[in-house]
Amino acid sequence: MAGTEVRIGQGLLAELPHWTADRTTFALLDRTVAARHAVLQADGWHRHELTGGETVKTFTVLEAVLRAMVQAGCDRSSRLLACGGGSIGDLGGLAASLFQRGIELWQVPTTLLAMVDAGVGGKTAINLPEGKNLVGTVHPAALVVIDLEFVRLLPEREFDSGLAEAVKMAIGLDAGLFTLLERHRARVRARDLAALTEVVRSSLAAKIAVVEADPREHDRRRLLNLGHTLGHALETHQGGALPHGLAVARGLHFALDLATRLGALEPAAAQRCRALLTAYGYEPWPLPPAAELLPFMLRDKKQAGGVLHFAVPTGVGTSEVRPLATAELRSLLGG
Amino acid sequence: MAGTEVRIGQGLLAELPHWTADRTTFALLDRTVAARHAVLQADGWHRHELTGGETVKTFTVLEAVLRAMVQAGCDRSSRLLACGGGSIGDLGGLAASLFQRGIELWQVPTTLLAMVDAGVGGKTAINLPEGKNLVGTVHPAALVVIDLEFVRLLPEREFDSGLAEAVKMAIGLDAGLFTLLERHRARVRARDLAALTEVVRSSLAAKIAVVEADPREHDRRRLLNLGHTLGHALETHQGGALPHGLAVARGLHFALDLATRLGALEPAAAQRCRALLTAYGYEPWPLPPAAELLPFMLRDKKQAGGVLHFAVPTGVGTSEVRPLATAELRSLLGG
Repeated sequence: MAGTEVRIGQGLLAELPHWTADRTTFALLDRTVAARHAVLQADGWHRHELTGGETVKTFTVLEAVLRAMVQAGCDRSSRLLACGGGSIGDLGGLAASLFQRGIELWQVPTTLLAMVDAGVGGKTAINLPEGKNLVGTVHPAALVVIDLEFVRLLPEREFDSGLAEAVKMAIGLDAGLFTLLERHRARVRARDLAALTEVVRSSLAAKIAVVEADPREHDRRRLLNLGHTLGHALETHQGGALPHGLAVARGLHFALDLATRLGALEPAAAQRCRALLTAYGYEPWPLPPAAELLPFMLRDKKQAGGVLHFAVPTGVGTSEVRPLATAELRSLLGG
Repeated sequence: MAGTEVRIGQGLLAELPHWTADRTTFALLDRTVAARHAVLQADGWHRHELTGGETVKTFTVLEAVLRAMVQAGCDRSSRLLACGGGSIGDLGGLAASLFQRGIELWQVPTTLLAMVDAGVGGKTAINLPEGKNLVGTVHPAALVVIDLEFVRLLPEREFDSGLAEAVKMAIGLDAGLFTLLERHRARVRARDLAALTEVVRSSLAAKIAVVEADPREHDRRRLLNLGHTLGHALETHQGGALPHGLAVARGLHFALDLATRLGALEPAAAQRCRALLTAYGYEPWPLPPAAELLPFMLRDKKQAGGVLHFAVPTGVGTSEVRPLATAELRSLLGG
């Protein structure tokens, strides 16, 4: 997207300290990642390590990071480098956008989820007890460095969680990526880095095209929320025990059901999408009762007359946003 | 400035509830102001009252406001209206820019200081224990409503504090405002609302011209910091006991001394500026020792090689930014 450079490759991490030598760099690091990679202990960085996960996306941690930046002597010409999964990226991006009203941000995503999704687009966020990502800014990174080597080390469940976002991009936005995922299922699931590089590159290209057309999420950017309206509700409902991508994958099944019921999607196309999901291990599972899910889905929508806007697939690699009344939604959820 | 409408007049407050009827409005109100004006108890607003002052500019209060917004049912199409002094405006602006990544902001400044300065320009901020305004965003208000009636009720010291910012604009940016302040000293000091309307209008026009040329404070906007580098240090040094404008006024005397020493300002022009300051009651007073002030002035500048950038007057109504090495600064402060 405008102003964001993306570098994708294998072994890029080793170059990072050379690239950052031009200015003061405050490095917000996932503790586990930092312990594994000696290069992240680079001299000359002000390091601040955190245990990644949703628990860092709080006001308490945000304030601690900003105070550490002051204490490290950062100023307006400094850079914040966020290296970790989506939570470190969300928090780091927000800290960069708030410190002295905004400094340069570099994102170094280390999970597949963050590589295909969270690293670009500029959305930053922390949570409130009332819900996820309710507080944030739009602050695009100047540079996103994607080193596929990180993917080798991911636990199975995290790998699956990340891949679900790529499947989402394929279903909703990119027929080419869809075909790639269909054809190279074995290589992708075996973490063949060449195949994964193509998957990440295509996912990012699809996302960047949407974000460039709509940086502040007014309309077109909502397509990126395919699977997310239900997905976020499932995550909140399960108190964080369900990985984001797995929640989104379940949300994709729901979006396919919804699209079919609304007549937006041909049954054959829906079937092909469902087959891709199950081929990657994303089976549909029984949803919690509508009465438990609906409050989480409606939280931010009280003023909009009880109408939710759902991204729904309209074909393989295409989608659109449809309004849905609360009553209809309840009936679809079986409540 | 771009996107910001400014309405200036007397009795505008009465109109406010009609203007806000188009969408959900979360009103962040100074408690004292709200108690005095029944119109601020308007039906249909979600009200959140705070005791104004620097103590509201914390992460704790910010989080409480954002949570109250969620609980009130605000969404992305809602509006935040901030009505109070600069602190309420700074906090409210930041809350508006962070809530769901940014909602519409209206500013209703009730102090002279906020009217001439803080209400426009879009700078939002909270403080850290390490220093003032270290955390914030740039989020211009869609509408700024300036009702001069509020000025009648201001305590003397607050009135003087606000007027100092207008004097700053006059010295650094606007020879016309300078002449206005010279000629109508008696009317202005007696709070003649017609005269004050002109002072506020001119101050805003001067500020808006600078901000439009440089919304993110890279260069030209630094001219607005005339008197502020020392002023902020004095405020921090005195732990908040010194009103902002009175600190700035003392900083203006220092900037005049500095400009004369640097040969940037003719002695006759410096004399005329000093005369305006004293005519409005802003006498210079002895500064604390350099060793106590310097740490506050240098806090954010460690990476810039010990060079501070000072706005200095170069004539009546003109100014420029000059670099100043720490050693020179220490010597000027007599340390």
